[in-house]
Amino acid sequence: MTDTRERGAVAPLPTTDTATGTTPGTAPGTAPGGGALAASTALLTDRYELTMLQAALADGTAHRRCVFEVFTRRLPHGRRYGVLAGTGRVLEALDTFRFGTAELDWLADERVVDDATLEFLAGYRFTGSAVGYAEGEMFFPQSPVLVVEGTFAEAVLLETLILSVLNYDSAIASAASRMTSAAVDRPCLEMGARRAHEQAAVAAARAAVVAGFAGTSNLEAGRRYGLPTIGTAAHAYTLLHDDEPSAFASQVASQGPGTTLLVDTYDVRRGVENALAAAGTGLGAVRLDSGDLGVLAHEVRAQLDAAGARDTQIVVTSDLDEHAIASLAVAPVDSYGVGTALVTGSGAPTCGMVYKLVAREDRDGALQPVAKAARSKTSLGGRKSAARRLDAGGRAVEEVLVTGPEDAVVAWAQAQDREPSPDLRPLHVPLVVDGEVTPGTTGVAGVQAAARRHRASREELPRGARRLSADEAAVPTVELRVGG
Amino acid sequence: MTDTRERGAVAPLPTTDTATGTTPGTAPGTAPGGGALAASTALLTDRYELTMLQAALADGTAHRRCVFEVFTRRLPHGRRYGVLAGTGRVLEALDTFRFGTAELDWLADERVVDDATLEFLAGYRFTGSAVGYAEGEMFFPQSPVLVVEGTFAEAVLLETLILSVLNYDSAIASAASRMTSAAVDRPCLEMGARRAHEQAAVAAARAAVVAGFAGTSNLEAGRRYGLPTIGTAAHAYTLLHDDEPSAFASQVASQGPGTTLLVDTYDVRRGVENALAAAGTGLGAVRLDSGDLGVLAHEVRAQLDAAGARDTQIVVTSDLDEHAIASLAVAPVDSYGVGTALVTGSGAPTCGMVYKLVAREDRDGALQPVAKAARSKTSLGGRKSAARRLDAGGRAVEEVLVTGPEDAVVAWAQAQDREPSPDLRPLHVPLVVDGEVTPGTTGVAGVQAAARRHRASREELPRGARRLSADEAAVPTVELRVGG
Repeated sequence: MTDTRERGAVAPLPTTDTATGTTPGTAPGTAPGGGALAASTALLTDRYELTMLQAALADGTAHRRCVFEVFTRRLPHGRRYGVLAGTGRVLEALDTFRFGTAELDWLADERVVDDATLEFLAGYRFTGSAVGYAEGEMFFPQSPVLVVEGTFAEAVLLETLILSVLNYDSAIASAASRMTSAAVDRPCLEMGARRAHEQAAVAAARAAVVAGFAGTSNLEAGRRYGLPTIGTAAHAYTLLHDDEPSAFASQVASQGPGTTLLVDTYDVRRGVENALAAAGTGLGAVRLDSGDLGVLAHEVRAQLDAAGARDTQIVVTSDLDEHAIASLAVAPVDSYGVGTALVTGSGAPTCGMVYKLVAREDRDGALQPVAKAARSKTSLGGRKSAARRLDAGGRAVEEVLVTGPEDAVVAWAQAQDREPSPDLRPLHVPLVVDGEVTPGTTGVAGVQAAARRHRASREELPRGARRLSADEAAVPTVELRVGG
Repeated sequence: MTDTRERGAVAPLPTTDTATGTTPGTAPGTAPGGGALAASTALLTDRYELTMLQAALADGTAHRRCVFEVFTRRLPHGRRYGVLAGTGRVLEALDTFRFGTAELDWLADERVVDDATLEFLAGYRFTGSAVGYAEGEMFFPQSPVLVVEGTFAEAVLLETLILSVLNYDSAIASAASRMTSAAVDRPCLEMGARRAHEQAAVAAARAAVVAGFAGTSNLEAGRRYGLPTIGTAAHAYTLLHDDEPSAFASQVASQGPGTTLLVDTYDVRRGVENALAAAGTGLGAVRLDSGDLGVLAHEVRAQLDAAGARDTQIVVTSDLDEHAIASLAVAPVDSYGVGTALVTGSGAPTCGMVYKLVAREDRDGALQPVAKAARSKTSLGGRKSAARRLDAGGRAVEEVLVTGPEDAVVAWAQAQDREPSPDLRPLHVPLVVDGEVTPGTTGVAGVQAAARRHRASREELPRGARRLSADEAAVPTVELRVGG
């Protein structure tokens, strides 16, 4: 098998203390005198967030209480469900979303905003609240996966960063879930770093594990999120040596016979012979990275078995996606290494999630629902709560979005929390309360919890929902009005 | 017009000193005692690069001189050319590709590699050389866009990071070039941060500007690479206010009448009226973000002109791609804001670039060409040089890849440099010489040079090459053998 190693502890993130789930609210990286932040996330933001802030500070509306919701209007073509990922990363990034001297100086030099706004930014810290779907949860069109409440000033600044993280990570997790579903109980291994931006690759590995992948080749992802790291060898390693037998002998001498040997550099049959000669029948695995993988897997399995290497596994790679994985279900394959298709979302490299203002205080201090008028972009005004209706067998039958006057929706959600119903599972969990991040949502613990939620939520999907063929959302979204 | 501001100086990158093009070779972020790096890029690497290194160190082949080439076997379906981007980012990342205490401790704790390998990594610094296509240059199938030469040990470690950067950045630049081509002389503005991983978004903005975009909404990209930053306002800003007139009045009061007002929150015609009432006929621009943009642009233009606001521009956004931009060529539009399609490569979110060992020292110290044997992956062994053959009018007619014995290829390239030919433009430029990065290739200067190269190289394409319709590569790749 590939060199997988489960890990207990994990070194802290070099750039943020929150990766290990430490209590937020402190400001890591902020020098006591308000100096430059080590790695501020505050400028990972569209310019207009800051210029809108400036105008709203000047006219006083910046302090109006607002509710923003994150949702997507539709799933990618043919997809039956989406998987929310990135919530933990959003919460980690909150802590470093501070404007230090370096950021403020640059904004001042560039005259992006005026002095009053710079002063506001210097003291900025998100003190609002957020609820949302637990990371790893399934979502459908209109599902309010994150609801941010705070003043306009503090909530609007987070728009770009929140969407960047959730749109990318959820795109990857949504694709990954189809792959692990197609692989059934065979492990999927993430190997796509080279086909994605180098930091996106780290997030992709994390999202893949949330959606059931067993490990990643990406060392930084292993370090940052405590993910199992795996690896085999490249063709370059074999080509470096004078011949294949010497390459294999060297790898086995270094890594032990439990290593995975890449056998398709020259001729697969000969490669397997050389592999067995080097490692014996205790060889961990062979990897196939080209050709007709189904046919080759059968031939190699027969060759290995005939030689007595019945426990030697077969790892396949080579531009796999969920369809290729499904087509290999009957082949004697033990694990799948997935690269390009995973890190690019298998045809859907981003989700269409938006961050919409759905309610805001009026001049009398009452929250009013608001919405853009255009017909092509249908979003109802007003806060939404959400629950999944389950049948007697525990299968999801409806995504229930609860709308109505603000206080009625909040009261409904609270009532659900007080008296859980077997047929209605509330979907919003507290993520940030008055600026404090809920423990267990970030770092290694957050990834592990998200992977558990993904498994449980996917089990709940109706039969047939995990078919790969193009179809409608597996669960219809319905609106339930409460109050007023 | 949108709030664009050209910039002279730029604040240094918070995480690397090389962004401003300072002399490489020093190790920014390395504590004098060899302490933890502030932001090491060394673990943005697949695990197998390190385990292969361990085995090769043990058997001595790690010190064999090697040549690795980066190229793609094919362009995305229907694309006629690719645009190389990311080279400057690769060269910036080289400087921080060091294993500090934090990285070494983690590798040791995880038992990724043995003590001998950890010792090698502790002293690692790339001391080899690299030539490549200048950033911004067009590329075609098999074009050797980067050639890395060094020991196996030092060159193999860079594989993952080099490919991550070049595959993502080039995918974005390749899409961006089609958009700026379709827009002809109307500015394209990058606004896609929310639809990409938050750090990928910064790289996307940089790649977009390399390929002709006029600016970006991304503040971090502005800070890091000296890009002009731009912005308008969101629907949330209008919805925050009690009504559209008060929102517009506030924005104009804060940003001046030269600002861009978003006029489609409620009703476009009324929105334009309110915009003119707030800003007068000196209004900078209006933005349209929904509906039939072509029809609306005509209506809005007529309305603006009738009111005497002949200089007020029209910015359009709303899921634009190169085809939508082309279809708006006859509409009275002044600039295009592009988001999702840009940051996801408009259907091709990664390039298929690979990092292949093409030659390595044998036991006698002679460089030997090497190649994987499989038919489906055609890569010739041996170093390649490259030149673009031009016709009498200066138009590209062939991508000439020069192959042959190592010394003959090198001699050919040197001869081209000595005696430039009007019909054969050599494509390889020195990027790293014995570990020293060529000045002008990184930071702000690197981006500016790449944007110039992109313009010049695209001008050189044959007539018709910039059509958007699916077709073959605009320039055929041919092989020229020299020597032996």
